[in-house]
Amino acid sequence: MVKVKVFVTLKESVLDPQGKAVSNALQSLGYEEVADVRIGKYMELTIEPSGRDIETVVRDACEKLLSNPVIEDYRYEIEEAVTQ
Amino acid sequence: MVKVKVFVTLKESVLDPQGKAVSNALQSLGYEEVADVRIGKYMELTIEPSGRDIETVVRDACEKLLSNPVIEDYRYEIEEAVTQ
Repeated sequence: MVKVKVFVTLKESVLDPQGKAVSNALQSLGYEEVADVRIGKYMELTIEPSGRDIETVVRDACEKLLSNPVIEDYRYEIEEAVTQ
Repeated sequence: MVKVKVFVTLKESVLDPQGKAVSNALQSLGYEEVADVRIGKYMELTIEPSGRDIETVVRDACEKLLSNPVIEDYRYEIEEAVTQ
């Protein structure tokens, strides 16, 4: 098995109201140091290697389902084989 | 400014219906290799250093607002100073 970490974040140009709300909440809790918060998705995929190239599978999955290419960017890290 | 990456994930013992749904969807799209998906939150905090220790601020923020300690775990990475 192979573990893949996927990070999906809003593009820089896209407003992040959720992040803004969290940032305001943190400041009202007394954490004035927090200047900005951007929120995204973090996914851990467990993949059972088949004949196909894992990088291709992950990129495809990100572009077709895990992220919205119009407003989001994605990146991934393929980890060592996970012994099950 | 300091950039901090925060990862909030469900505890291992907690069921992840959202992850299950994504996993099933990926398999129906033809990605049988995908055995499991766990979904969490990824946050990027921009912090303006004040007198307080950044690690303490981040840990406090995670425990009080950014994660639900009952069902979620969190970890964070404090990055180099970001020049604005």
